[in-house]
Amino acid sequence: MALWFGQAMLADGWRKDVRVTVADGRIARVEAGVGAQADDERHGVALPGLPNVHSHAFQRGMAGLAERSGEGTDSFWTWREAMYRFVDRVDSDALRAIAALAYVEMLESGFTRVGEFHYLHHDPAGAAYGDPAEMARAVVEAARESGIGLTLLPVFYAHGGFGGEAPGVGQRRFVCDVDGFAQLVEAARGALRGLDGAVLGIAPHSLRAVTESELAAILPLAGEGPVHIHVAEQQAEVDGCLAWSGRRPVRWLIDHAPVDERWCLIHATHADEEELAAVARSGAVVGLCPITEANLGDGIFPARAFLDMGGGIGVGSDSNVRIDAAGELCMLEYGQRLARRERNVLAGGPGRSTGGTLWRACVAGGAQALGQECAGIVEGAVADMVSLREDDPALAAREGDALVDGLLFAGGRVDSVWRGGRRLVSGGVHVGRAAIEARYRDALRGLLA
Amino acid sequence: MALWFGQAMLADGWRKDVRVTVADGRIARVEAGVGAQADDERHGVALPGLPNVHSHAFQRGMAGLAERSGEGTDSFWTWREAMYRFVDRVDSDALRAIAALAYVEMLESGFTRVGEFHYLHHDPAGAAYGDPAEMARAVVEAARESGIGLTLLPVFYAHGGFGGEAPGVGQRRFVCDVDGFAQLVEAARGALRGLDGAVLGIAPHSLRAVTESELAAILPLAGEGPVHIHVAEQQAEVDGCLAWSGRRPVRWLIDHAPVDERWCLIHATHADEEELAAVARSGAVVGLCPITEANLGDGIFPARAFLDMGGGIGVGSDSNVRIDAAGELCMLEYGQRLARRERNVLAGGPGRSTGGTLWRACVAGGAQALGQECAGIVEGAVADMVSLREDDPALAAREGDALVDGLLFAGGRVDSVWRGGRRLVSGGVHVGRAAIEARYRDALRGLLA
Repeated sequence: MALWFGQAMLADGWRKDVRVTVADGRIARVEAGVGAQADDERHGVALPGLPNVHSHAFQRGMAGLAERSGEGTDSFWTWREAMYRFVDRVDSDALRAIAALAYVEMLESGFTRVGEFHYLHHDPAGAAYGDPAEMARAVVEAARESGIGLTLLPVFYAHGGFGGEAPGVGQRRFVCDVDGFAQLVEAARGALRGLDGAVLGIAPHSLRAVTESELAAILPLAGEGPVHIHVAEQQAEVDGCLAWSGRRPVRWLIDHAPVDERWCLIHATHADEEELAAVARSGAVVGLCPITEANLGDGIFPARAFLDMGGGIGVGSDSNVRIDAAGELCMLEYGQRLARRERNVLAGGPGRSTGGTLWRACVAGGAQALGQECAGIVEGAVADMVSLREDDPALAAREGDALVDGLLFAGGRVDSVWRGGRRLVSGGVHVGRAAIEARYRDALRGLLA
Repeated sequence: MALWFGQAMLADGWRKDVRVTVADGRIARVEAGVGAQADDERHGVALPGLPNVHSHAFQRGMAGLAERSGEGTDSFWTWREAMYRFVDRVDSDALRAIAALAYVEMLESGFTRVGEFHYLHHDPAGAAYGDPAEMARAVVEAARESGIGLTLLPVFYAHGGFGGEAPGVGQRRFVCDVDGFAQLVEAARGALRGLDGAVLGIAPHSLRAVTESELAAILPLAGEGPVHIHVAEQQAEVDGCLAWSGRRPVRWLIDHAPVDERWCLIHATHADEEELAAVARSGAVVGLCPITEANLGDGIFPARAFLDMGGGIGVGSDSNVRIDAAGELCMLEYGQRLARRERNVLAGGPGRSTGGTLWRACVAGGAQALGQECAGIVEGAVADMVSLREDDPALAAREGDALVDGLLFAGGRVDSVWRGGRRLVSGGVHVGRAAIEARYRDALRGLLA
């Protein structure tokens, strides 16, 4: 099969008249400056698919339900109480229904792989399911139905606060000990068998939820796979970590764990300069979730400083309050602009486009964070691609990186999406949307009744 | 004609099974708790249409073209240079083509009336057109073609800086003296004749562009119509005003002009508490443009404090870098959350929804700012309405204000839009989009060639 594009973002820059030959789900050949052949599918503009480094898929079902004020000042912590109430009602069927719609929406927006930070392990009473992979299997089936690439990150969650504090009742569906976690990881590995392009990693939830010895005990379970952790999302977490250990959370992590290229630090919003430098040196990726971080009032990550240190970034849709690949990059840049009262903060130098720079950075950083061996429109890579229509009015008469700026900032829309060479989205709509949407609505009616 | 909705946001709150009878473009009757009659059009959820208080329609054509770094630090001021270069090439045909698409996009997103802050008066050489309304007529025709409600605000622009500084060459198409402006306003009045629901106001551009005596001379030209002015968008403007007058710009304006309910202060980003209190007392509306203010790195308006003082707000799409009614309200709230590290900052009290509160506030404030005599889904008002689909997955199993939260924060989509009782948008697409979009693309190819 061959696809032909009027313009494409390749590893060495933008090229016109690009023919991409796909075989066995991978890009077998990339030719630029050539005409389309008779059987080629013709499209407008090709971009590499964007990895989504951080998702809690079930939270898509409560999107918009926590935008109502409680008593007193609302914060991340009051939101978390609302999330705990919602999660109490989610069983494996509901999880599968919600996750499948979330993954459909991810593909439609241009995300081709998701890192599912999966912590919903036990039944509503907090007891282990007969099959430890009961809930993981729902995530896997949702990925299979939608066709998205899945990096499954079973979460280790043992405590309710720094220093091994006992977990709260709202956390009963998440918690396990090291042995139980080893079983969960093994069961997840089984559940992933046969899923095309699946990657398995692990995710110690946060320094609130994991002790030093537990962290050391679970890390070998990752094998060569990625390791993700929430860190420094809220100032209260920084304060709590300082009170407990005398160190800030990112500093503590770097000092107590073998943080390297396999790691992805989710949020790191309140990292200071010294911590950022240490992360950049480690080779770890920072997983930013700009829409969720705005929604939860987390704050603004010092992205300019981190990129200047050579740090790698990816983006994630996290709470899935809104699923929008371009919107995440837009919000990332807009947060910087509002904080610094400047423009094109993350463009990275004279003449460079903010959109093009961010798309490339988050394709590379995201692929690393999700354990993909190679990314981008390049021979040998998995054929994960996004196309835009050249006649989209938001992109009219644009070329090269200006097309990405139009996608991020001016309301340009994704047209088609391929994952592993399969065209899953056409005209902006996922091929399986209707049935997945109907099942989602049924599930929501049950959950919110 | 009657429309029947499963749920509707009425003046006295949410009601179910609502029948709205429309006659001569106005809402003749509103009944709640009644069944649909045989000939009624049935829809899901009804909201009042949102007024867009601030637009420079031609800037839609350069959306995304200034997201590329220049030399040194980019800012509002370097963006303005890019805008001046673009505007040099826009003639009345191009303006009409661009504005028509912008207005189509506004309607599709839920804006039913636009305040066009119109300063592009002269030909590319800076000479007056034979018909002073040459460019205004292009705006009027674009409004007519799209069907959007138009409040036309011809702009008085005479100077390039505080204290009557001479205008720069980039401003040559905007500038005129008081007599020339009187002719422009008269010509605009003529151009609006026959346009259903048209309102005429005036807009002194900013305190940079207008002297005290000029301001006094032009105000009578507004008659009973609205008066809009840019103020305190950038810290540099505050500094410039202080250096020139010893007062901050909002303070200067309140002290030197009869600011009252007819006025709309656009941005007011860098107003201090004392200025905010004076604006709130005046009854003027503050016109916030959150997406543009993020894009331009303006900063974050202290909206919580202003609303607590009883201040009125509306929203505008301003540079039209992205046209998204719900997105403006979302960005307004997200800016507050990022700055304060709280959630539901603008909800306005326990149990209140952020989305519902903001939608109502901006319908009321926007209508006031655009010279509408009455707004909302209420007998006697012009029938400007928006519907959502109850089966939109982002709104599944939601009721009342949670639907608005779903629209703003969770990716819910507008289905149909009525302006003056005419259904202009159906299934999210404007009835005239195809032809208007094609003409826009042709115009852009010419402009960007």
